[in-house]
Amino acid sequence: MRRLPDTLQQTAAFIRDGRILDLVDLALDAHDRHGARLNAYKTWDGPRVREQAEALHRMIATGVDLGPMMGIPVSVKDLYGVPGLPVFAGTSEALPGRWSRSGPVVSRLLAQMALVTGKTHTVEFAFGGIGINNHWGTPFNPWSRDDELRVPGGSSSGAGVSLLEGSAMLALGTDTAGSVRVPASFTGMVGLKTTFGRWSNDGIVPLSSSLDTPGILARSVQDVAYAFAAIDPHAPTIRPRELLGLRIGVPDSFFLDGVDPEIAALFQKQLQVLEQAGAVLVSLDTPGCDEGFEIFRQGGLSAAELRSFIERNFPEKIHTLDPLVKLRVESAHSMSVIEYLRRREELAVRGREFTKLYERCDVIATPTVAISAPALHELAEPGVYAQINMKVLRNTVIANLFGQCALTMPMGLDGNAMPAGMQLMAAPRSEESLLAIAHAIETKIGGSRELVGTPAGLTQQ
Amino acid sequence: MRRLPDTLQQTAAFIRDGRILDLVDLALDAHDRHGARLNAYKTWDGPRVREQAEALHRMIATGVDLGPMMGIPVSVKDLYGVPGLPVFAGTSEALPGRWSRSGPVVSRLLAQMALVTGKTHTVEFAFGGIGINNHWGTPFNPWSRDDELRVPGGSSSGAGVSLLEGSAMLALGTDTAGSVRVPASFTGMVGLKTTFGRWSNDGIVPLSSSLDTPGILARSVQDVAYAFAAIDPHAPTIRPRELLGLRIGVPDSFFLDGVDPEIAALFQKQLQVLEQAGAVLVSLDTPGCDEGFEIFRQGGLSAAELRSFIERNFPEKIHTLDPLVKLRVESAHSMSVIEYLRRREELAVRGREFTKLYERCDVIATPTVAISAPALHELAEPGVYAQINMKVLRNTVIANLFGQCALTMPMGLDGNAMPAGMQLMAAPRSEESLLAIAHAIETKIGGSRELVGTPAGLTQQ
Repeated sequence: MRRLPDTLQQTAAFIRDGRILDLVDLALDAHDRHGARLNAYKTWDGPRVREQAEALHRMIATGVDLGPMMGIPVSVKDLYGVPGLPVFAGTSEALPGRWSRSGPVVSRLLAQMALVTGKTHTVEFAFGGIGINNHWGTPFNPWSRDDELRVPGGSSSGAGVSLLEGSAMLALGTDTAGSVRVPASFTGMVGLKTTFGRWSNDGIVPLSSSLDTPGILARSVQDVAYAFAAIDPHAPTIRPRELLGLRIGVPDSFFLDGVDPEIAALFQKQLQVLEQAGAVLVSLDTPGCDEGFEIFRQGGLSAAELRSFIERNFPEKIHTLDPLVKLRVESAHSMSVIEYLRRREELAVRGREFTKLYERCDVIATPTVAISAPALHELAEPGVYAQINMKVLRNTVIANLFGQCALTMPMGLDGNAMPAGMQLMAAPRSEESLLAIAHAIETKIGGSRELVGTPAGLTQQ
Repeated sequence: MRRLPDTLQQTAAFIRDGRILDLVDLALDAHDRHGARLNAYKTWDGPRVREQAEALHRMIATGVDLGPMMGIPVSVKDLYGVPGLPVFAGTSEALPGRWSRSGPVVSRLLAQMALVTGKTHTVEFAFGGIGINNHWGTPFNPWSRDDELRVPGGSSSGAGVSLLEGSAMLALGTDTAGSVRVPASFTGMVGLKTTFGRWSNDGIVPLSSSLDTPGILARSVQDVAYAFAAIDPHAPTIRPRELLGLRIGVPDSFFLDGVDPEIAALFQKQLQVLEQAGAVLVSLDTPGCDEGFEIFRQGGLSAAELRSFIERNFPEKIHTLDPLVKLRVESAHSMSVIEYLRRREELAVRGREFTKLYERCDVIATPTVAISAPALHELAEPGVYAQINMKVLRNTVIANLFGQCALTMPMGLDGNAMPAGMQLMAAPRSEESLLAIAHAIETKIGGSRELVGTPAGLTQQ
């Protein structure tokens, strides 16, 4: 084995074919070569992975099969509890040990003996979409040119980078406003944000008790669908559906306002490819987005919910917060409960309205992020940071505010030679249908490998 | 037919036997005789019921069967939307017409052509457990002696009274702190509070978006189980389970503190009957109740959620609120969102802790209300009202705060010759098991008819 298999399905076959040690060697070697530069991980757990792989190798030889994720290297965002590993949640000091207990998502992976390579970096308390962490450094987006470091996206800032590095083949993230989809888009990966409530948030340090959702990143829709079915207790095997007659909703405003022209052109180009393949493009007026986004601009629900969580659990951390996070958390204190509940209700009402759009289309497509991954040096000033953070999250946060599930998949390289993603949104709890549609699109337009490839410095052949 | 059939099952058989008009005549006549004195209904819809019954009579003769609730007279708390009837929600003026749209619970009944006899009185916005409404008068608890009017319990204040009157055989209520169970207990009826989230609150004017639950009242557990299975899309037919080996948790504090001695004696007596029938009594230390109740005392979540709802939808109503409601709604304005979220989280954590008790028992039994239904004249002073309201709701609100489902069933008449109820709580979403257990208990100790009977002035023979 000279490079990682192309799909998780092939990987599973290799593992059952007695080649788990080759696979794990490749993953651990990749981290040895690139880890120091890329800084995807807060906590790296390579030695344990090696030991577990050796034990698994013997077990598999006796005919054991623990499920589809057995032996697959998985990186876990450092908000999730994984027994034996500390949780920093992007803060300056590890949280108490009880935060290391695993919740259902991690438990489902561990029960199948997926191999947790380590805990990937996150924005502090996941409160930011760009990926910066002033305590632990910002992971290096491998697509950056040498002379201009571009951000990896956040808050799951190490997730996409761990996949590109080649140390993990699946990455767990969380998404409250775009924190799975933005880093997936900025690194050329596929990222799925589940519907709120579909997967439990137990065992995950919360940002927003109203909006947090677990999510997964991988190199293709096919891999994301494979992992989704392995983690979700109710998902059937997901197969691509026909493109012929697929109704793709295309918003005629909001999501396309002020989009970088090269990104807009990529988006239109891929839509045309899909139309030629038999899909029907349905122009949509998407109601309520301006109003929902205005609530988000004012701190949404997250700022107050995070402040409340920190005060209750780690009051001492208020003073040591990353300045980029602190500013927004502090502003939450003066909000009245009446205003908070007004926001919740308005979002619920507008979300129900938005969901009616699926009477006219099967999915809604938008550019995942309106702009190219920004350069780190542009973001030093907090006012500029806040403005760009809003711009980066604009197209993704609607799915959170309005209770949709959503996915990003690569659609090509933009004018800065950075990957750009296409977002697909679907109705609440219709992940299976969303993945089946995205898989069909991938089959037509190509996945990460074909569309964006791997940054030159990281190719493993 | 000289009186209403004993059970809903028998009623369904009578209806299919061509006797729906006899049945409906009995119900409408009962209201004609007692309605003016009992004041159970805000809006009475007898003429429409009569018309629908005649149409149904013809349809049934052709072999039509619309389901288990077909032709059954049902009263609906005036918080639920029922097409064609106004919704006052206990306020001084009808709400806009959109509140008359039916949600899933009412729709399930209407689809089976249950006959809605009218809208029963409620405390204004359901915010109170005693049953007083200074806009429309307080329904008369038929168990009162002539010289001392005792309250019917609230907030579903007309629900139990409509059953006693004989105009309805099922009553819809809602329960945010005890608003189904308290009136059921005070009128000698059975009342079920569903688990939060099991039945949709759509189509119901909200009090607390966090804690509101639909519920049903009827004359026996058997009837409640019948109606539950007819309304719930997932419930199987519910049959009594064995008492032998049933583990009944009996709290050793909180729920029994300061309970009226006659009510405590009834409770102990019935527990002994159940023990002799083979049930096992498990003494329980119930954690977190004091802390949960303290949050409730401070306004809980409801005060802020109601204030927020009123401000958003009917800002003008703030000024015309019943003084007993206004005081508590006004106090909500100063609460910070941080405090609100702290309360939610504390209740969630303590609720999970409480739910662990079901590792040691199948249900938890308590007196439903610690005191006898109070006399109306004792409650005129707002300070006294507030104190007694708290006392009345103490044992029921725990199930709301901690996410349990719960039921009350009569256990006899107390020292004031008023009915007293036994509450059974069960784990979230285990309504089927709760009803099966309560049905078995009813089979042993008797239901309303045997244990408390009907007030002398209302017997219909």
